[in-house]
Amino acid sequence: MNLPSALLWEGTADGQLVLLDQTRLPLATDTRTCRDVHSVWEAIRQLAVRGAPAIGIAAAYGVVLAVGKPAAAGVSAGELLRIVEEAADFLSTSRPTAVNLFWALNRMRNVASKLVTTSTSGVQLSEMLLEEARRIHDEDRRMCQQIGSHGARLLADCRGVLTHCNAGALATGGAGTALAPIYALQEMGRSLKVYADETRPLLQGARLTAWELATAGVEVTVICDNMAADVMRAGWVQAVIVGADRITARGDVANKIGTYAVAILARYHNIPFYVAAPSSTFDLSLISGQDIPIEQRAAQEVTSFGAQQTVPSQALVYNPAFDVTPAELVSAIITERGVIEPVCEVTVRTLLEIPAASLIAANPKLSGRQL
Amino acid sequence: MNLPSALLWEGTADGQLVLLDQTRLPLATDTRTCRDVHSVWEAIRQLAVRGAPAIGIAAAYGVVLAVGKPAAAGVSAGELLRIVEEAADFLSTSRPTAVNLFWALNRMRNVASKLVTTSTSGVQLSEMLLEEARRIHDEDRRMCQQIGSHGARLLADCRGVLTHCNAGALATGGAGTALAPIYALQEMGRSLKVYADETRPLLQGARLTAWELATAGVEVTVICDNMAADVMRAGWVQAVIVGADRITARGDVANKIGTYAVAILARYHNIPFYVAAPSSTFDLSLISGQDIPIEQRAAQEVTSFGAQQTVPSQALVYNPAFDVTPAELVSAIITERGVIEPVCEVTVRTLLEIPAASLIAANPKLSGRQL
Repeated sequence: MNLPSALLWEGTADGQLVLLDQTRLPLATDTRTCRDVHSVWEAIRQLAVRGAPAIGIAAAYGVVLAVGKPAAAGVSAGELLRIVEEAADFLSTSRPTAVNLFWALNRMRNVASKLVTTSTSGVQLSEMLLEEARRIHDEDRRMCQQIGSHGARLLADCRGVLTHCNAGALATGGAGTALAPIYALQEMGRSLKVYADETRPLLQGARLTAWELATAGVEVTVICDNMAADVMRAGWVQAVIVGADRITARGDVANKIGTYAVAILARYHNIPFYVAAPSSTFDLSLISGQDIPIEQRAAQEVTSFGAQQTVPSQALVYNPAFDVTPAELVSAIITERGVIEPVCEVTVRTLLEIPAASLIAANPKLSGRQL
Repeated sequence: MNLPSALLWEGTADGQLVLLDQTRLPLATDTRTCRDVHSVWEAIRQLAVRGAPAIGIAAAYGVVLAVGKPAAAGVSAGELLRIVEEAADFLSTSRPTAVNLFWALNRMRNVASKLVTTSTSGVQLSEMLLEEARRIHDEDRRMCQQIGSHGARLLADCRGVLTHCNAGALATGGAGTALAPIYALQEMGRSLKVYADETRPLLQGARLTAWELATAGVEVTVICDNMAADVMRAGWVQAVIVGADRITARGDVANKIGTYAVAILARYHNIPFYVAAPSSTFDLSLISGQDIPIEQRAAQEVTSFGAQQTVPSQALVYNPAFDVTPAELVSAIITERGVIEPVCEVTVRTLLEIPAASLIAANPKLSGRQL
């Protein structure tokens, strides 16, 4: 199957990060090369790289870019520690909602502060940081596979599914979160039809999901966001599956604006609503989704399309990038560790707070479907 | 208050129809002059004039255009009858869903066949047809006022309302259907905040509703369709009000694609969902909304924006122009005759099948709120 890579690292610790510029898809498959931390910040901010897991990976490589050249130039490990902190602080201001960003940056901070000793050289620290970024990237690839495999069981009886925004290969280091089960089924010779909400205002569904599914040979039908209810009523989809940018301890899900509406429509039509996300998307420090910071973006994303203005200048605009779907509307959350179902604080904490190896022992009921 | 006119007739029976070209709004307020029936058909098809009531009025004037010049040229009344039939048949192929189109064309047909006698001249018949078209136009203006007055009572306690597509002055011969109550309240000094769904794919909410509300001095906030649920959750709207293209005897409502979703979201948030439409929008020959023909439009409306392609060419597209909201999701239907509430076949037929004058006698309960 032909899946695109959202990003890749080229070279050693003073190498460069190459991103597929997602603002140019589907018409052009241009890459964008980042050689310093500022260009990574810009790429995240401008959505050249987007999707919670991919943002985390890009930010980790961003920290590597911050230390690569100073280390090669002979800067000490102690001094690099300060540079890591500065770079992580800076990158964490790029976007506020996806928690994977902060999670990945914390891993980079921890490596730097834990592994540095008086005898560590700057070059050694810089190599350790690249190793950690590569590990985050590799783990994400495996997580996608595992999510694909758990999710494929949930979607096995579906003829069609609906998805919102893009939680595919383009949003991760691997085969995606929400789209991974679809690819897994495709590889088993079980083709699903996918209905992709175009996802206004930036059309990630129309531009990205449709492109990567079509490239992988999956039949995809693009609809405007306001057509999802009609598609459900027509009986063309037996499940909805989406990604997530942050999930709280009780299972409230922040995801691309419009996800909450799709969840309500799915409930009305008695269609299961699944969220697929790696454990790094959970923020167990928050209970309620109302406490998740929601990024507000520029009105211009709504008021114009390319060069064409579509909203009169006297009108106001509301443009939140995300919304929160309460746990009670989520049928199950598919993680790399297994499936959380039903979704509530007990089931979330059970799956996430116990080391994976102890899971079966702690809760034998999880052993069947979940692991 | 500054309300635009969607269309006006200039001159006598061999005059011309001038339309505000709504495909060019909000950036340009160009008019489009129709001098024959083909140009009216094109204007309806291309949505230069749109909105169920306005389509009916335009089609009536289209019939006048078909007979004006032949009559002036001395063609007999008998021959004009055939021209009327042909023109009405042709205009009825312009768009399939809005029933006001067929209703208005039938009125024109009836005038021609009932009023023509052996002594009627072609010029007389042509003048009678212009009179009927003007009557349809004037009645629509009054219907809008009456809907505004009935609806204002329903919305009196709202601070904010949400609307979908455009059912305002631009969609009618007067102050609109769904927007009429908002204008009525504005004239009483009671300002509502209006949230306008942009209404993909053709953005009638962003381009038309936002423009006419802002022009009239009403505060309007444009949102993407997928943000409506978030606006409801935030508590910013206390009602939803939309227009209709066809309403069946049991109160199922065909309206712009996305209306059904908004109705489900309103129900979930316990927000009343109102439909405002003149009695000419009802099709009592149909019981279920599933029997309403739904216009499918070109994929290109979804796949590109102006010159810019946004969907990869390998993807399929589904683009219905309308959907059907079942009566059980409709809190009330506001007509020029009064308010239908609750919405079911008995209440619909009670209000619509009895001559207005007999209504209070037939159903004293209707006398308070409804008339």
